[in-house]
Formats: sequence, structure tokens, C-alpha cells
Amino acid sequence: MKINRNYLRLPDNYLFSTIAAKTRAYQAAHPQQALIKLSIGDVSRPLPVPVVKTLQDASAEMGQRATFQGYGPETGYPWLKAAIRDYYQTTKGVTLTPDEIIISDGAKSDVANLLDIFDPHCTVAMTDPVYPVYWESNVMVGHKIKLLPATAKNGFLPMPNRHARVDLIYLCNPANPTGVCYTREQLKQWVDFALKHHAVILYDAAYEAFVRDPQLPTSIYQIAGAKQCAIEICSLSKTAGFTGLRCGYTVVPTALIARGVSLNRLWQRRQTAKFNGVSYLVQRAAAAVFSPTGWTAIQRNLRYYQRNTTLITQTLDSLNWSYVGGVHSPYVWVRCPKGQTAWQFFDYLLSHAGIICTPGVGFGKAGEHYVRLTGFNTYAQTRRACQLLNKVLTQFKQNI
Amino acid sequence: MKINRNYLRLPDNYLFSTIAAKTRAYQAAHPQQALIKLSIGDVSRPLPVPVVKTLQDASAEMGQRATFQGYGPETGYPWLKAAIRDYYQTTKGVTLTPDEIIISDGAKSDVANLLDIFDPHCTVAMTDPVYPVYWESNVMVGHKIKLLPATAKNGFLPMPNRHARVDLIYLCNPANPTGVCYTREQLKQWVDFALKHHAVILYDAAYEAFVRDPQLPTSIYQIAGAKQCAIEICSLSKTAGFTGLRCGYTVVPTALIARGVSLNRLWQRRQTAKFNGVSYLVQRAAAAVFSPTGWTAIQRNLRYYQRNTTLITQTLDSLNWSYVGGVHSPYVWVRCPKGQTAWQFFDYLLSHAGIICTPGVGFGKAGEHYVRLTGFNTYAQTRRACQLLNKVLTQFKQNI
Repeated sequence: MKINRNYLRLPDNYLFSTIAAKTRAYQAAHPQQALIKLSIGDVSRPLPVPVVKTLQDASAEMGQRATFQGYGPETGYPWLKAAIRDYYQTTKGVTLTPDEIIISDGAKSDVANLLDIFDPHCTVAMTDPVYPVYWESNVMVGHKIKLLPATAKNGFLPMPNRHARVDLIYLCNPANPTGVCYTREQLKQWVDFALKHHAVILYDAAYEAFVRDPQLPTSIYQIAGAKQCAIEICSLSKTAGFTGLRCGYTVVPTALIARGVSLNRLWQRRQTAKFNGVSYLVQRAAAAVFSPTGWTAIQRNLRYYQRNTTLITQTLDSLNWSYVGGVHSPYVWVRCPKGQTAWQFFDYLLSHAGIICTPGVGFGKAGEHYVRLTGFNTYAQTRRACQLLNKVLTQFKQNI
Repeated sequence: MKINRNYLRLPDNYLFSTIAAKTRAYQAAHPQQALIKLSIGDVSRPLPVPVVKTLQDASAEMGQRATFQGYGPETGYPWLKAAIRDYYQTTKGVTLTPDEIIISDGAKSDVANLLDIFDPHCTVAMTDPVYPVYWESNVMVGHKIKLLPATAKNGFLPMPNRHARVDLIYLCNPANPTGVCYTREQLKQWVDFALKHHAVILYDAAYEAFVRDPQLPTSIYQIAGAKQCAIEICSLSKTAGFTGLRCGYTVVPTALIARGVSLNRLWQRRQTAKFNGVSYLVQRAAAAVFSPTGWTAIQRNLRYYQRNTTLITQTLDSLNWSYVGGVHSPYVWVRCPKGQTAWQFFDYLLSHAGIICTPGVGFGKAGEHYVRLTGFNTYAQTRRACQLLNKVLTQFKQNI
């Protein structure tokens, strides 16, 4: 039996598993120490009442012969697609047809599985640092990867190199892990580049709900020409606290044609053949998110997390500490103290403040001197973490 | 942009979508005609009370800060893995460790996604007729496919050809679509063949809960040597009516090593990088299935479907009509009337009896003169269908 040898080129452990293992080991050695998790991008607010109510109602339906739901449409129920179409129309001014929206169990699955429909000998561009799933899933297929360093020099927003030849471009906007956000003008340059070079942009909009400035894009389709070159992947994980429920969606415009072949058709074909749709209950819950009461409740949660990131950025501002992000994003990309690597600073924050962060190098070499903090913990824990952070970082300032 | 051109070799529509479209068209033209669906293998019994209760409790937990669940372990919660381990130990006498059990959103995803961990230039054996997902997902990757015809000649149970060279072997047991079941002795021949030729068996046990004879295998690991050569994929779809909830699992024994590499490790790596786990609610419901009250309720549903298939096979027996399956399986593989192809018989049954079947040719060329009927409808509908079937088939007998 021949295995896929590309797998042997992967690091042995997924980044967040490594962090979890390190944290467990530390906690075991220091059982008294209270730890505060500002690492993984997991939400902490419970699901709002209208969503819970819908889940319970839908569960009851599954217990009655007349309302029981078996296999649903592989690409999602029409009523959920309609709700998402309306959301795009109302909040983004983007017109989609329900067929262009394909429901999935989350953005992670889609950003990785989308590679199935492309040639296995693609050249793929992605930022460094980057969401590890892009990198790992491309290594698994054996694609050639071109990294675009996101550094202080370019404001952590790499722009296209007009000489580069690439087939696929991953853009996460607002970006994970740096928390920065392209303007419409910058995104237009990417769209123009993709159109000119017949590349496809895989646009990960998982954090679009965190954008506070209406001038900033929340969908790539707000940019002229994007429907001819971009696939948009989105998720309810961060928008609506669905990290444990699992629901996302991918938009593949029917106008997106590669050498005469509709990518919408290919992706539908992939999902129809290799996936059996998202749990009926979860799709019902997702539709409830887009209902008026659901949406109001969700906004309250988003503001809650934004208050947390503001607390973090205010702490850093007061110290004049170097960072980006945290405004249109739940993520703050924090510079390590001089001379410390990301994992060193991770260990330092853990042992001196009990704060768990994500080492930037886990997202790529360019993150070697950064860590990622998130606004997803509770307000009380975040406030406590900020006090500790203030103490630890002040000391560094004094040591410099 | 280069697409995956293997996709262009696929038929334009997934089998069940074509049936649905044909049925919709017929129903639109004959709005008065009552149709009975004996086609797609979807369940009809609602979820039992203990499962619904668990779903509602878990939904309530998701609405409270203290009990809210975010990201779970990508490969499944330990308590669900433990429940499945116990199920294997108790009912099958098979000893597994929780690490060997990887929870997923269903067998369909797994039988297709498992190809990711193997070399893209594999030769793959599968029966003809076969569950279309095996065939389609292998065409998508560009694998070389060797079809093993399942015909009346070999009792619809192809045995290994000792001269054949293959890397992967799909076995569905009890088989979809034919409803037949390998004995332990027959399965032993497959295991021995795989061990000798270093092939891996992808054993789809989705219908294992329908096996009535304790002498027949319900897991390939009941066969000596299987842990060194087989991956077992199973699902709660048919066992527990989870077609709309979505939960399955794949067993990759740690003893399964290909050229020094642990396939368990590769599959865990794939799922950790490209999947974010099954909805917490659904995993809770799955665990409830394996509880004493859940299991009792599930058995009642299985017996209900078995009564339906018995009704179908009795009808066919009374006409001395040629068929297989229907005993250890919800599927009955029925010979078409002389001179009729599968789609002709599909049209005939639809227009003369309002019965929707699955044309055998949709599962492969060897099914050209068969249709698949299932026991998944209600008892009342199945009884009505059997009366109509009796009438239609009697006429054919007279016409011959």
C-alpha cells in the first residue's frame, strides 16, 4: 500500500494541539495556578435564547413521525440559503442566488476541501503568518506554496507582486492571526491581479462580522470583478458562537468560470458526492441566527468580544507596546519583548502571568516574534489578564 | 486556473438527484397520483425519546455560560469514543482503544475523504454494483478502478482474484445495493488476500446492525488479521435514524501500518487539519443511542424496518420472482422483468404503481437489469407498495 507521502512533510502536531499539551503539562505541575486562555479563537458566550429555543423545537420535530427529517439536500436547505442571500443583500449590498451559497459544517472543512476541485499541480499564494489549515491542506495535496510575508513593513497586508505566477490565492480578511483588514482599494488590487492572471481567490471571511467601519469590506463581492475570480468562505463560528455546533457556508458565484468550466458546478459536485449535508438541527439554528431576534442577540455577543479586544489594545496602548489588529477583529497581534521568540514569550506569559497565548511562529516564520491574543474570553477574565499583562510588560519595558 | 479535470469524467448528476428530478417531473404531471418511495435508503422512524431528550438537554446546556461547549476534539469526544469501544466489545467481541475510533459526520464523508491519506496513483477494487460514492470519489482523485462484478453467478459476492494487484479494496458488508452478506469464511479470504498483497480494505459496515444471524460478521475485526489490513467505516444513519443528524465513525487500528507509517496517525492528522469535529449536540445524541434505553428503542426501529423488508421478500417469494438481500439488510435487489432495463423498470413501476425504486444501473453496469427496493418506508406504505408490486409483477409473469 502506497500512502500519501506529502503527509510526512507535515509537522507532527497541529498547532493548537501542541498548545493544549503544553498547557496541560504546566497545569499539572502547578495545580494551584489559575490560567487565562487568550489563545485559541474559541468563543465563550453561550448561544442566545432564540437559537437554543429553535434547537429544542427542531429536536422535538425529530421525535415525531410527521416532522422527522432524514437526509437533507447535500448543499443545504433552501430556507437557510435564502436567509444568507438576504443577509448579503441587506448588510453588504451583494446580490447572490441561493444556488451560489453552499452550506457546510464550517469554514475549516471548506478552505481545505475546496482544493479537491483544482488541479493537483497548483501554485498557491498565502500570507505568512497564516491560518495553519491553508498551509497544511496544501502541503497534503503537494501544491507549490508561495508565502507572502505580512510584516510591519507592509502593515501586515501583503499586496500582489505583479510578476508572480499563482493559481490560487488565500486571503483571510479581517486576517487571522494578525487582525488587520484590507481596505476596498487594496482588495481591488488583488481582484485585478487575479482577473489578469486567471487566478482564483479563496477569500476567508470568517471574521467579517467584527468589522466596525462600514467603509471596510465585509465581502469580496463588494469589489467589482470579484464574482469572476473569487470564492468566499464564511462561518457562523465566530459570528454566532457556532464553534461547537458547526455551520459555515461557501459562496461560489456562477460567474466564476475556469477554462470553460463552472466552479460552482464543480464544488456542488464535490459536496454532493463526498458530503451528506449539515445536521438539520444545526441548519435550523443557523437560520435562527439570521432572524430579527437572533441577529439582535448575536450583535450583543459581538459587542461583548469587541469590548474585550478594546481592553487588550488599551492596555498595550498605555504601555506604548507594539501590536496590530483588535479593532475590526477579535485578534490582537502582539510583538514579543526584545530578544524573545514566540515560544519563549508563550512560556514566559504562561509561567509569569498564567496567560495562554498563541505563539505567532505557529502561523508561519514571519510570526517568530509575535503572539496572538484574542478577545474571546469573558470580560472578567480578560480584565484580569490585562492587569497581569500590564505588570509583565511593564517589567520588560524597565528591563530594556 | 487549472481545475481538477477528473471531475469532467463524472456523470453530470448524482444518482439520487436524478431520481428526485424524475420523480418531481412525474408528480408535477400527475398531481393526483400517490407515490411510494422505496428508493433512497432514508429512514422514516422518528428519533426515539431518549435521543430527543438528550438533544434538548444538550441544547439547553449550550444556552448557559457554565455548560456551553465550543470547539470539541476534532476526532470526537472521549465519552462517545468510549461508548463505541464498549459497543464493539460487548456485541462483537472486538477490542478497540478509544484512539482507534475517529468520530465523523457520517460514513459518506469518511469513505471518500479516506482517499486523502493514500497515494494518488492507487489501484482500487470495488464491486459492481457499488455505492456510487466509492466510485465517484475515486474518479475524482484519478485512481485506477478495478470493478468486481457481483452477479447471480457468484451469489453477488465477488471473491478475490489472486492474480489481481490492488492497493485498496472497498467492501460493503452487508452490501449496498444488493443486500447480500459475506460469511466469516469469505471475509477471511479477503483479509488473507489483503495481507498477502499489502492492500488495505476499506470496510463499510453501515448496515451491520441489520445482520440477524449471529454467525455472520458485523465487524471485519472479527476476522483474524483484519487489524493489520482493514479500516472499518460505520454510521448511525441506518442503525439509529441519524440520516438528518449526521454522525458516523471510522476505526483505524493502530496495528495498521503501511511501509512503516501508521495509518491511524495519518487519518487523525487529516481529520485534525481539515475537519473541526462533529456538532456537540449530535455527539451527545450518538452517545444516547448507546445507552441502555437508547439501544432498546433503536432495536425496536430496526425490527420495524426488518418487518418491511420481510413483507417485500414474501411478496417476491410468493411470485417466485428473482431477487437477493432483504434478510440481513434493509435492501432487496430485484431482477427486472425480462427485456426491461433498470431505468425502463423504474419508469414502469413509477407510472403503473406509483412506486419509486432505485435503478440498479445507477450503482454500476452489472445492475443494468436490477432495481433496489428498501424497507425504510412506513409499514402501511410498504404494505400498500407490496400489493401494487404484486399486481404489476403478476402481469409480467402472465406476459412472459
